[in-house]
Order: sequence, then C-alpha cells, then structure tokens
Amino acid sequence: MTKKYVYFFGKGNSEGNASMKSILGGKGANLADMASLDLPVPPGFTITTEACAEYTEIGEKKLFAKIDKEVMEQLKKLEKVTGKTFGKGPNPLLVSVRSGAAASMPGMMDTILNLGLNDETITAMIKLTKNERFVWDSYRRFMQMFSDVVLGVEHDHFEHALESLKKKKKAKLDTDLTAADLKALVAEYKAIVKRDTKKEFPQDPVEQLWNGVRAVFSSWNNPRAEKYRQLNDIRGLLGTAVNIQSMVFGNGGDDCATGVAFTRDPSTGANEYFYGEFLINAQGEDVVAGIRTPQQITLAGSKAWAKNQSVTEATRKSKFPSLEEAMPKCFKELDAIKTKLEKHYKDMQDLEFTIEKGVLYMLQTRNGKRTAQAAVKIATDLVKEKLIDEKTAVLRIEPASLDQLLHPVFVKASEAKAVKIVTGLPASPGSATGQVVFNAEEAEKWSKAGKDVILCRIETSPEDITGMHVSKGVLTARGGMTSHAAVVARGMGTCCVAGCSDIVMDYAKKCFTVGKVVVKEGDWISLNGSIGAVYKGKVETVDPALTGPFGDIMKLADKYKKIGVRTNADTPHDTEVAVKFGAEGIGLCRTEHMFFEPDKIISFRRMILVAETVKKIKEDHGVKSVYDLKTGKDCCMNKEEAAAVVQYKQALDELLPLQRKDFLGIFKALEGRPAIIRLLDPPLHEFLPAKENVAGQKEMAKTMGVSVAKIQELVDANHEFNPMLGLRGCRLGIIFPEVTEMQARAIVEAAAAVKGSHPEIMIPIVGNVKELINQKEICKKVIAQVEKEKKIKINVMIGTMIEVPRAAMTADEIATEAEFFSFGTNDLTQMGCGFSRDDAGKFLKDYVKLGIYEYDPFVVLDQGGIGRLVKTAVEYGRKVNPKLPIGICGEHGGDPKTVEFCHNAGLTYVSCSPYRVPIARLAAAHAAIKQK
Amino acid sequence: MTKKYVYFFGKGNSEGNASMKSILGGKGANLADMASLDLPVPPGFTITTEACAEYTEIGEKKLFAKIDKEVMEQLKKLEKVTGKTFGKGPNPLLVSVRSGAAASMPGMMDTILNLGLNDETITAMIKLTKNERFVWDSYRRFMQMFSDVVLGVEHDHFEHALESLKKKKKAKLDTDLTAADLKALVAEYKAIVKRDTKKEFPQDPVEQLWNGVRAVFSSWNNPRAEKYRQLNDIRGLLGTAVNIQSMVFGNGGDDCATGVAFTRDPSTGANEYFYGEFLINAQGEDVVAGIRTPQQITLAGSKAWAKNQSVTEATRKSKFPSLEEAMPKCFKELDAIKTKLEKHYKDMQDLEFTIEKGVLYMLQTRNGKRTAQAAVKIATDLVKEKLIDEKTAVLRIEPASLDQLLHPVFVKASEAKAVKIVTGLPASPGSATGQVVFNAEEAEKWSKAGKDVILCRIETSPEDITGMHVSKGVLTARGGMTSHAAVVARGMGTCCVAGCSDIVMDYAKKCFTVGKVVVKEGDWISLNGSIGAVYKGKVETVDPALTGPFGDIMKLADKYKKIGVRTNADTPHDTEVAVKFGAEGIGLCRTEHMFFEPDKIISFRRMILVAETVKKIKEDHGVKSVYDLKTGKDCCMNKEEAAAVVQYKQALDELLPLQRKDFLGIFKALEGRPAIIRLLDPPLHEFLPAKENVAGQKEMAKTMGVSVAKIQELVDANHEFNPMLGLRGCRLGIIFPEVTEMQARAIVEAAAAVKGSHPEIMIPIVGNVKELINQKEICKKVIAQVEKEKKIKINVMIGTMIEVPRAAMTADEIATEAEFFSFGTNDLTQMGCGFSRDDAGKFLKDYVKLGIYEYDPFVVLDQGGIGRLVKTAVEYGRKVNPKLPIGICGEHGGDPKTVEFCHNAGLTYVSCSPYRVPIARLAAAHAAIKQK
Repeated sequence: MTKKYVYFFGKGNSEGNASMKSILGGKGANLADMASLDLPVPPGFTITTEACAEYTEIGEKKLFAKIDKEVMEQLKKLEKVTGKTFGKGPNPLLVSVRSGAAASMPGMMDTILNLGLNDETITAMIKLTKNERFVWDSYRRFMQMFSDVVLGVEHDHFEHALESLKKKKKAKLDTDLTAADLKALVAEYKAIVKRDTKKEFPQDPVEQLWNGVRAVFSSWNNPRAEKYRQLNDIRGLLGTAVNIQSMVFGNGGDDCATGVAFTRDPSTGANEYFYGEFLINAQGEDVVAGIRTPQQITLAGSKAWAKNQSVTEATRKSKFPSLEEAMPKCFKELDAIKTKLEKHYKDMQDLEFTIEKGVLYMLQTRNGKRTAQAAVKIATDLVKEKLIDEKTAVLRIEPASLDQLLHPVFVKASEAKAVKIVTGLPASPGSATGQVVFNAEEAEKWSKAGKDVILCRIETSPEDITGMHVSKGVLTARGGMTSHAAVVARGMGTCCVAGCSDIVMDYAKKCFTVGKVVVKEGDWISLNGSIGAVYKGKVETVDPALTGPFGDIMKLADKYKKIGVRTNADTPHDTEVAVKFGAEGIGLCRTEHMFFEPDKIISFRRMILVAETVKKIKEDHGVKSVYDLKTGKDCCMNKEEAAAVVQYKQALDELLPLQRKDFLGIFKALEGRPAIIRLLDPPLHEFLPAKENVAGQKEMAKTMGVSVAKIQELVDANHEFNPMLGLRGCRLGIIFPEVTEMQARAIVEAAAAVKGSHPEIMIPIVGNVKELINQKEICKKVIAQVEKEKKIKINVMIGTMIEVPRAAMTADEIATEAEFFSFGTNDLTQMGCGFSRDDAGKFLKDYVKLGIYEYDPFVVLDQGGIGRLVKTAVEYGRKVNPKLPIGICGEHGGDPKTVEFCHNAGLTYVSCSPYRVPIARLAAAHAAIKQK
Repeated sequence: MTKKYVYFFGKGNSEGNASMKSILGGKGANLADMASLDLPVPPGFTITTEACAEYTEIGEKKLFAKIDKEVMEQLKKLEKVTGKTFGKGPNPLLVSVRSGAAASMPGMMDTILNLGLNDETITAMIKLTKNERFVWDSYRRFMQMFSDVVLGVEHDHFEHALESLKKKKKAKLDTDLTAADLKALVAEYKAIVKRDTKKEFPQDPVEQLWNGVRAVFSSWNNPRAEKYRQLNDIRGLLGTAVNIQSMVFGNGGDDCATGVAFTRDPSTGANEYFYGEFLINAQGEDVVAGIRTPQQITLAGSKAWAKNQSVTEATRKSKFPSLEEAMPKCFKELDAIKTKLEKHYKDMQDLEFTIEKGVLYMLQTRNGKRTAQAAVKIATDLVKEKLIDEKTAVLRIEPASLDQLLHPVFVKASEAKAVKIVTGLPASPGSATGQVVFNAEEAEKWSKAGKDVILCRIETSPEDITGMHVSKGVLTARGGMTSHAAVVARGMGTCCVAGCSDIVMDYAKKCFTVGKVVVKEGDWISLNGSIGAVYKGKVETVDPALTGPFGDIMKLADKYKKIGVRTNADTPHDTEVAVKFGAEGIGLCRTEHMFFEPDKIISFRRMILVAETVKKIKEDHGVKSVYDLKTGKDCCMNKEEAAAVVQYKQALDELLPLQRKDFLGIFKALEGRPAIIRLLDPPLHEFLPAKENVAGQKEMAKTMGVSVAKIQELVDANHEFNPMLGLRGCRLGIIFPEVTEMQARAIVEAAAAVKGSHPEIMIPIVGNVKELINQKEICKKVIAQVEKEKKIKINVMIGTMIEVPRAAMTADEIATEAEFFSFGTNDLTQMGCGFSRDDAGKFLKDYVKLGIYEYDPFVVLDQGGIGRLVKTAVEYGRKVNPKLPIGICGEHGGDPKTVEFCHNAGLTYVSCSPYRVPIARLAAAHAAIKQK
C-alpha cells in the first residue's frame, strides 16, 4: 500500500480522527474529529506531517511530485462537497492554508487566508456576494499575507501603504475604508510586489496553493519556531501538517464575526463563564492585532470587562455588546458546542469560530494553554465534575509548572508596564524588588537598616552567603543555572537572575551598565527569577496560596507516588519551609554553610591557621588525634607547638556549641522526621579570603593577631589547581579527624536533646570503602561517648554520598559498611562527565545546541551516562544489602525527569531544595502512575 | 593435631626444608635444607613466623606459655645432639639467637650471639678451651649485644668503655687486648648494666633465651624494619622466625675465622671468582664493622683487591693473605660447598661461614642481593649453564630494576664521596651534573652557550618545557611522582628529583637554601634521579649498554610476552630512543607539547586572541567553520570582525606546516611502525602566560601588538576554576573545529609524504559518542580532501581515549564509532577517584600510610576501582567489536603491576615513556609466563 499523504475532513467525510495528531497535527486531527461530531466545520483536507518530514529530507521538488495527484484529487473533492470551483467563477472556492503540528505552537508558523483570489475570482465574488467592499478587503488581506509569507516582500511596505491611505482618507479603522479605497490599495499592493520581486503577483490559484504549502512547510524550521520548540522542550515531532480549508468569512458585513474563546478562564481556571472575545465584520488576525477593541462572548464577561475598563453600561451595550446580546442564536449554538467539546475532550478547550451571514462555523479546537494556577483548578474541578479520574488529574499538571505557585509573583499588570533592562537565566524562580548593592557587606548593612536589597555581583562565592541570605534577590553577570549563585539561591528560595552577560559590573564605581543604561547603588530594580527578566524600578508582588485546588492536587500526588521526597535544608528556616511544602525529612543538610556565619568562620579560620602545624606534631608524636597528645610538662613540644595545639583545640571547642545549636533548631523543625546531615565538604580555601581579596586577608590577619604575610602564606598553601578534586569531604575528616569528631558530637548531642529526632550522618566524597570505615569509626566512638555521658540510647545511621565514580563502581564494597547511600549527582556528573560546574558553561550551551547532550546534564540527570553509574551503584549496593535505603540529593532531585528516573531505578527517596518539594512530589506521582 | 611452632635442624635431624620459608623464614628453611644436604651446619632449631604473628596478636605472655614446652624439648634435643649442656659445665652449650623472615631484610632485625654465657659457664669454658682471652672476649660481646637489644641500655656506653680501655692500654685493635683487659671490661659492663637498669645482668640462661626470643619478635615491628618493608614493597608476611643455633666460634684463635661470600660478583654478575671476605680470629659482626680490614676469599680476588688498594704483593701475602692461601683445606671445602649450593638453589648465593679450630661451618645461605646489571648477567649465564630455563631467567629479573640499566649512572665511588645536600622524590631516574639555573629562559641561554644546566624550580609548568628539554636534570621543591616536572622529565628521559620540600627557592635572589646550605645560580650540583639524592658539586657518570646480557634478556622477554608495547613520544628524538628500546610503535603522541615551541606558540596565541570573536561571528552567520564565512565585499562583517577572521585563518595557516614537520620526523623515525597521534588536549590557558606572570603578559602584548589590558582580559577569560574539568580535549575541537581540521591535515599530509606510515588519530576527553562522531566527521573530511589532492589512498584509523568515566560506562556506544580505544589512566584516575594530580599530593601520602590505597593510584593503577572501569569498558567495547584494539597510554603503562593487569584484562598493548619500554616488555613477559 502506498503511503497516504492527504486526509479529507468535513461533515460525514472525515478520513482522520483525534487519535491521529502525530500525522495530522493537532489542528487537522481535531477538525476531522469535530466534523465527525457533527459540528459545523468548513470542509477541507490536511497534508500530513510525514510530508513535511520528507519535504525537509528530499526537498520540495521531489515531494510535490509525489503528492501532487493526491492533493489535486482532494481539491476536486472539496470543490464537489462545497459546490464551488477553485480559481474560477461563478462560485469560487477560496481556502485558508494553515500550519498545525502535533504540539501547539501558537503563532510560530505561517498562515494564509483567502487563497484562491485573483483578478478573475474577484469579479465572480463581487457578483456573488454583492459586497464589493468585502471582496476587495479580502483580496488586500490575501495579498498582504501571501506576499509576506511566500514572496518575502517586507510586511512594512503594505502596512505603510495602508496607513497612508487611512491618513489620506481620514479613516480611523480599516472598516472605515470604502470598496473604492480598498480597490486602489490593491493596485498599490500589486505595484509593491512588482517593484520588490520583479514579477506580477501570481494569478494561478494552483500555483498560489503550492506556494502556500511550501511556505508552511518551510516555516517549521524558521528560527522562531525552532526557538519555541527549544524553549518549550518540544521534541520528536515529524514536522507541521498543512490544513487547507474552505474559507468562511467573518468580514462579510455586520452579520459576520470572528472570535476566539476558552471554555474556562485560562488565568485562574474558574468555570464562571465562557471566556473569549470576538469582532464583528473581521477576519481572524484582527482579533489579536489589537487595532479594534474586541467584544466579550458572554454578557457576564462583558459586564466584568466594562467594570474593569471603566466603561459605562450604556456605552458597553451600544458599542461593545456581548455575543450573547448581539447574536443570541449563534451564542446559544456556540455555548452548546463548548459543553459538547469539553465533555468530548475532557479538558478546557481553546476555540476559534467564525460567523458568516449569521451562520456559525468552528475553525479550531484544542486543549487550552493555561497558567499553573488554572491547570490545578481545572484538573481538580474536572475530577469533581466526574469528567476525569484522579490519576488523570495528577498527570494533567506539569510538575515544573508548580514553581509558579510557590514563590511571590509579580502582579501581571504591574510587570507588563515595567521597563525591562536585560534578560538573564531564570536561575531561581520568584520575584523580587529592591535597591541595588554590589557586595555582601553592604547587603547586610542595608538590610539591617530595614531596606530591601538586590545583591548584584559578577559572580557569587561562599563569602557572599550571608549577604545573599538577607537579599530579596540576586543578580549575577556570569555563571549558569548551576552556578554558585543559582544553586544557593534556589536552596534559599531566593529569587535569582544569573549570567546576564550583557551586564558590565563596575564595583569601583558602584554601578552596572547594560549598553547605555546605568544602574547605581541604591537604585530600585525588580527581578523575575522565573523568566530571567530584570526591570527598572519597583514591580508589585503577591503571595501564593498552598491550600485549595493546589492542596487537593498535592494530596492526590501523595496518594499515588511511591518514592519519598525529602529536602535539602541547612537551616531551621529552610526546614520549616520544606516541611510546609510536604518534605518527609531532610535528605541533605550541608554543614559547611553554617561555618560561613561570622562567629563560626573566625573559630574555623583559627583552626585552619594551625591545622598543618598540629598535623605535623601529631605525626612526630605518632598519635591520631590531637586529644591523644600529652600536654603540660611532659609534652615534648616547644612553646610554639604547644600554643598551636591549644589554639586548635580551643577553636574546636568554640565551634561545638555553635554547631549543636544549628542542629537543635533543625531537629525541632523536623518534628521527628529523619535528617541526613553531611559532614564538612568543601576544600579549606573556601573558608579563607580569596587570593585577590587583600582587604579580607588584612582583616583576617588582624582578627587572628598574625601578620598579613602569614595569612597570604596560608592562602597560598591552601590554593589548589582543581579544588573540585582536592582536599575536601572525608579527605579533610581523615587528615583532620578532630573536625569529624566535633561535628559528630554536635549532631549527637543535639539529637539527644530533642526527643524523637532521627539523625543520619553522611560521609561525603567517599571513593573507597576504607575512607568510610575510617570516618565511621570516629563517629561510632563519639556516639558511644555521648550515650555514656547522657545515659541514653541514640539511634544514628551512618551512610555515605555516592558522588565519586569510584564509589559507584565499588558500591558493593561500600554497602558492607554504609547504612544508606545518597547520590550526590552534582559531583557525580562533574567527575563522571569531567565537567567543572563552574567552567562548563563555556561549552555546555554549545553542546546542547549541537545535540551532544540532550539537556544540560547539571539540570536534567544524564541518564545514558551518569544514570548508568547510578544504576550500577544501586545494583551493587542492593546485591550486598537488599534493604539499603538509597536516595539522591543533588540539584537533580527536584527535576521531574530525574525524579521519574529515580523512581524507575528503585531509589528510596529524592531530596531537593524546599521550593522544589511539591514539584518532586508531583513528579513522583507521575512516575508511579506512568509505570503502571 | 596441635600446631608445631618449633622445628629442629642439623645433620640427619632436620624437621624443616627449603620449601617452608613462609613459616621458617629464609634462614631457618635454608639451614634445615643445608643440613639435609650433609653440609656442616651447627645444629639448632627455629621458632616459626606463625609464633611471631601470635606474639603480635595475643602478646608475649600467652604465646610463651603456649610454646614453652616445645622450646624446652628442642633445647634438650640440641644438648643431646651436641653433647653440651645449656648454662652449665663442663661443656656449656652456647647459642646464637637470630631473626629470619621469609624475605631477606639484611641488618633490619636483631641478633644475639654467645647466649648462654654467665659467670658459671665462663669458668667451664675457660677450663674447656684453655683460652681465657677468647672466653672473656665472647662474654663481653654477648653482654654488649644482649644489653643493647634486650635490656635497652645505650650501645654507646659500652663502646665508650671499650674505647677508653683501648686508649689506656694503647691497643690499636680489639685483638690487642689481653684476657685480663677483657675481664676488667666485663666488670665495667656489669656496672653499666646495673647503673642503667637497676638490676644485675641476668645469669639464668633460660631467662636469657626467652629474652632473646622476645627481642627478635619485637624487632619485626621496629620502625627501621617497617620502613624497610615499605621501601622494598615487602607485604603479606607473618613475621620473623627465630633461629636458635649452637655457637661455633671464629674468635677462638688464629685457626679460627669468620666470613661472608657471594658465589658470583653481586655488582656485575661476573662468574670470575668466588667473591667474599673473611677475618681471622673474629666473630660475625667484625667483618662488616670495618674496624679491621677484611681479607679476600680467593687468591685472584685478593690480588685484584691489592691492586685496587695499591697494596704490594709482599704486604698482601704477609698481612692480607686470601683464605685460599691461609687455610687451603677449608677454602677447598668452602669452594666445593659453593658449587653444590648454586646447583641446588639454581641461583647466586650469599653465604656466611665460620671456621672453628680449622673446621668449616656454614651459618647461612640465601639468594644473594644484586644490582640490575648483575641480575641480568647471572640470569642469562645460568641459562647457558643449563641451571635454569628461559622463562625462569625472565622471571628472575625485576622489571622495575631495568631502569638502572637505561640511564647514565654515577660512578659509584664518585657518588660515595659526594656531599649530599638534600633528598627528594626519585621522580625520573638517571644521573645529572650541571650548573644551577632558576628559570627556563636562563636554562636555554646557558645551554646554548654550551653549559650543562640543572633547572631548579618551585614547580614546573608547561611554559618551562623548552627549558626542561635543554637541561641535564630538573629539581623541584614541590610536586609528587606525577607532578608536571616528574611526568615530563620521565617522558624526556631527563633525570629529575622532585618535591624536595626542605628546599626554599628564592627566585629573586637566584639561590636556593636547605637549612644553612645556600646554592646560587651557576653553582654545580649533581642529581641522582633513581634515589632522589641531590649532591654538591660534580659527580662522574657512565653510559649504559643495551647489548650483551641485557639484550639477551629482552629477546627472551619478547619471545614470551603477548601484549604489545608502544611508547609515548612527542618528538622524533623521543621516538628514536623508544624504537632503540624496542617500542613497537607510538601509543601516544601528545601534540600540545609541540605548540609550546617558541615559533608555534606565537601563532597559536594569535589564534586564541581572536578565537572567541571568531566563534561569535560564526554563530551570527550560522556557519560551522571559519572557512564557510563569506569574505570580501559581501561578508557582512565590520572591519574588526573581518580582521579577526583573517588573523584566525593566518594563525592556522602558520601552524599547519610546523605541525606537519613534527609528524614527518616522527613517521620517519618509526620506519613503518604505527603512531597514535592525539589531538590537542590541554585547556587554552596553558598556552597563555600565567595570571601572575605579568612580564610574560607584557611580552605577549608586545608580540601580538595589543594592549597589556587586552592580554590580561584574555588570561582572565580563559581562567578556569577546575581546568582539569574544563574546556579541553575534544571540547576544544568541537568549539573550534578549525584546530582539529588543521591538526588532521598536518597528520595526513605528513603521512602522505612518508611511505608506509601508519597514522592513527586519537580524539581526547571523549565522554559521549556524539563528541567522537563530531570530530571523526571533521577528520574524515580532511582525509578525503588530502587523498583527492595528493591522489593517493591514506589509511588512517580514528579512535578515542577512554579517560572520562562516562566514556568507560558508555563504551558500547563509543565502540560503534571508535576504531580503537586507548585508556588514559591518568585522567581516568583523576576523574574516577576525584583526585587532582596536582593537588592530591597533600593527602595521598597519608592515604597510602593509612592503607586506604595500597599504592599511590597515579603510580600503580588502582585495580579495585579504576580497574573496574577499565574492565567494564573493555567488556562493553569488545561486545560491540570483538576485534577492537585497546591500549593504555597513561603513566601507568610502564608500571609492571599495571602491565600485568592489562595483560590479564585482554588489552592489545601498553604504551609508556621511552625509558620505560624495556621495563614494560619484561613485565609483559612476566605476566604471560605467570598466567600459564
């Protein structure tokens, strides 16, 4: 059987149906479907997406030769069904040529209306309709669209001619132009075409048709469409279909109209009234073009609109009546169709219709685009209305979209009015308005003075953490979606726009510039972290609600999900937020963030200052821990050495109660939920002033009471060429075991003080089971000590991160010692792929563009590569201990695709930043439902 | 059956034999064996190494209770066999108590002679021997040893007393002291013991015996013995055995003697004469103590000695006669035993003997330690003598030891006299003498002036390569065995001592200091890279020979090995050396080293300068390659852009012929052998002056004709936080495809010019098959172009490094495109273990000490972890392509243990630096022979 490329649609004649979206496109399939439902659909036919794919592959010439016969047959059929003739009188067949892919890509591809008009059919149409103005209007519209889309004549030339004419004729609206005006305009259009293309406007309707088809097929790969697919993650489609449909006219007089409508409110999801707009005596593009003010479909809608626009009821009724009032019969019919379609498609629909001489025609129906708020409301409502079941409702909500519901958001109208300065990466969602500052200290100072600040940096570093914490938002010029700023901000739930490469920061002059725009310290700006926009001045915000339909959907998600959802939280506040968002515990509590607080960093720096000296003393004395060194007279140390030992111990003694306090707050906030606490992870240099930060070095020297040279020496000694692969994680705990001891003690003492707490100690950067054994031994010893001191039993699990590839490859060995695994997929990706998170931005964008990686592997887990390491580790680990709890706590833990992967890989839980918890819960439910 | 802890040995009475080394130790097993061979062995018994293990485990008390009965029974038996009584007259049994582990650890553990002497047996002995002087001499020796080893009395106290006495008595030698003198000395010794231990010297012989046993067992774990085992990689032993043997006395008069001998020359392996020394009227320790000049065993040896020492024949004959002359009967007997033992053990032996009253006794035999040169000579000789077969001969040579034979070496005598300044890591073997310079430019300048230089740096960087190349040796204060200096120096075959942490380099003052020693620019120093020694002044060197026994052994190795051996070589010179050493081709030719040459780096820097600009232009114009950009009037570029494009192309055009020339030389040197050439690997910043190198930046600015600020901007833009994981390898080739194009063209054009060349292009840092596809496509295109241009067919294989963990995990995908794999185990270890080679020195030493890794994973492949990645990749790759050639080209390629692993893992070849090729060939033969 030869392949069928063209499918007819029309009452009783449809060859396709709703299930054929992939080859007919959404529009084509639904037109066929609506026709089969006996709805008033102008007949036509659809050229398949497969033809589009071949168009790209074998080229226009070969494809058109292949489908020519079929198209001509369908055209004949269309003539027969409509009783009209294509390109000829007395009753000429005019058609629209419209794109339509399987996924909705509104406005991204090209459309031509009124095709089939030429100097000959014009005459026939005038004779037939006795409406000269309408025909000339249709002709000039057709010429305009066709010349732009097919012939590549600048759109502006036509607009300019139209505007000149309107000026000359003192016409306000297009509808004020007469038939004669329009006829003259057509003549002018023809001259423009001739001038620009050196050819006459094509008169052969068949030539017009093929040109239209070519234009639509070509538009599939136009940059705009490609960008749209990329942004909306639309993949795996063949191409666009082409729908050739017999025209009906909304511009044939005052008994004609055209409109678009949503069956429910696409912004809120409310099912109050039929939401939509229409225009009398107009064609499709006029409704969205904004030249004339559209009218509302329902009376209720119209009244609400009038109120909002401060239009009096008298004016409304006379100038902007609703369809319900203006064309009650058509409205009634449309309203019935609306109900029928919602029942049929079991979802909110987005409709297009045209009324020609009082007769209603349906031109399109599709599932309507909606905000996350509306999606949640509609899904829960449809369950109540028994149109869909719970699982379907859950699957209806795109997990990532929940993000919109969790952060304070700008009031739409206010944002629309704001002046955009620049666009960066949407690094951490939410909205923020504040005054610009350029360093962390200023941020703290201003914030203490009660000001809202936006911290602006070239890029952030751990030294900026406190400053970030007090800021309403963070803006950086460098760094990607997983840069320090982005990761930390998402963790904090702070809005962040990162990597605005057009910004030039000038710390010295305390300003940043974008082209000619200069923003100075203290200036107000607003960030929309969900889209990466930066605005001048203030934009109003509003808080989200977690109850109502949102709560209902989350309940359903929890009912169906199998995998647990924990959170990455480092502070009691983060923990509280996460618990509110439904976290079942902490999957990752990073203890290093705590060390950056001013009081702690001083003690810790004091320790680092003497750490090497103390290490050498221990080696000389052959002891493992500083506490095993003899002190006093017999100590065999010189004065300097003895002082170093004292300082080292003192620093640890200072840190212990501070750390314990952190954990106390977290355990309390968890109310009995488990908490995985990771021991110190980053390399020591992160706790010291940077090499370039001479001021910081001077300050540290002063605080420590040593020379600046000494501090510089320390900074140099702790410098690493590849700190990512340096002395960090358990390596630190092994070289400086007292730090592990102190941290373990802080955890266990805090746990002892909060009844019902469930601490789980996690050892980072383990690559070899012997590292784990070393650290576990220290922890076990401390636990036993504290149990003895406090005379209670404390249940502490000790497990490990799996983040070094070697750990994944030897997970069978590690599982003999680890009581749980947690995949640190950030580092596993860095080491497994050999990508430095801080540097890879340079080429990862190109890599995704070139298709080397489907997604940025730091955003969506690279399932084909790193995923194999994960699966290997799960398999090895569970072979040794079938009940081994295994989680994931990298940034990926909140990514829906990764959550699905984790569900399928048999993980016990995922852990993500507090604001991603609801997303992960929903994604987990999706995974479980899809699996069945 | 209860475990037997004690084994008797003696003529017709031996309970053990030569095969029981692991429990009797080498000495004990061979004593039993010699006795069974009817050789004159004084009887005794051996306490097993198992007892030593239990000593460490359950402690002295429990162990001694356990073995007491057995020891006493064996002691009784010894009394019976010797007809003597222990601790009693009239014929007292005296014994030696000596350690003896399964592996020879000469001088590392403790020995006690003459045990059983006390105030009572003294009298009996005097009566029996009628030689009062001998008895008192034996007693004072025993007291001295026992007090030192068992009682912990300072050795010096006794030495001091002895020396005082000799001074007082004007005695030159110990033998000049009379019986009365020695008697007085014993009294003084007793006083010393009493004073220091507050106890009398123990008189009970059984107490003496157990104390001796305890001392030997304890000495197993003394720091000196532990260090020795660590240095000599002696692992898996239970402990030391204790040999208790009835004493025979070499110090009983002029018819007594004691000596040590090698059956062949341990330095050269020559089988000319019986090599050894003895002393008349002496006990064992005197021979090595150097107080008296020992005499030679054979007449020939004695004459040679006299000549070397400028001793006249008359003096020699009268004062230093050979054993052959002095005791012809005993010599004859010893000579016969020598022959018997060599035949029996089929190897060169190291003997100890004592002559008591004209009767010869054998106290020990073992396989003699020897130099690499001797080992090779002896093994090949033994094959000729039909004592061993070829495979045994091959296995007799420790592959790593060959290193000694490949580099110029110091003349021993000259080195012995030299003053050692400091010791560092033996980073690259060989010896070098030269004048000190402190930077690469000076090195080049001085070298051009015909001077031998030693380049001294805190650490080296790629900028130093040319300077390193012209230096005789390299000395660094920082960095480990795999630091830049070490790796590059080994690659060049240049001697290098690295990581001398005691050195303080002062570039400003052009000197380095070690404590109080100051070495200035221009001072002469000498490096021994095989042991890490740095000497003041000049030391003479001598060149190695690659023929003779060495050549014979290498031929045998090639006969038995299965896996191929290639070399890592970047220059024609390296290639020639490697071919001379038997390399079968190049396994890794690093092209980046070529770029560091002054003419090339300028062109390459010119390219880097505009690379980002050109990349942006290409993106704007939607083209992949700079050659696809339209130039001239239609180019749509502004002036700056057009200039950048021109400069970019020009730089590439300059590089092409330079690169081609490099490859030409290499292909010629290979004479038809295959060459794997790796495309550019390091990140771009390595080709730019370092951030701190302002002078270099200024120079570059001048050369490029741009501002210094521009260069600094460039340096900053190319700065990476973790360059190891940054924009390097194929990532560069993908972002800047023209570089790949240029390199591929240089390779293929060179191959076209040298008949019979076999280029194999290797793509580095591939983690994803799509990267390989991208680069392969470019190479294939270039190959086709060149084939067309030159009108010939060029066979080029295109394969990839497996060095990113993700590549190993997806090797099945990669094998569909790669025509060969080569494991880059350096990077695979870095990424797999998460260790930065440049930074891990800080903790890897501790890790090895703590036993977390058995060996430094950058020296010996971590088989348990990284080895799993290797095996996974081999399995995946061969599943797709069973004939896939797979090699290894990391630094590990020359490590014998890794070579064995590679053989067992089914690899096709290993590749290593030229000077490691013979080692790898031999290790490959070992692996093949052992496998059978």
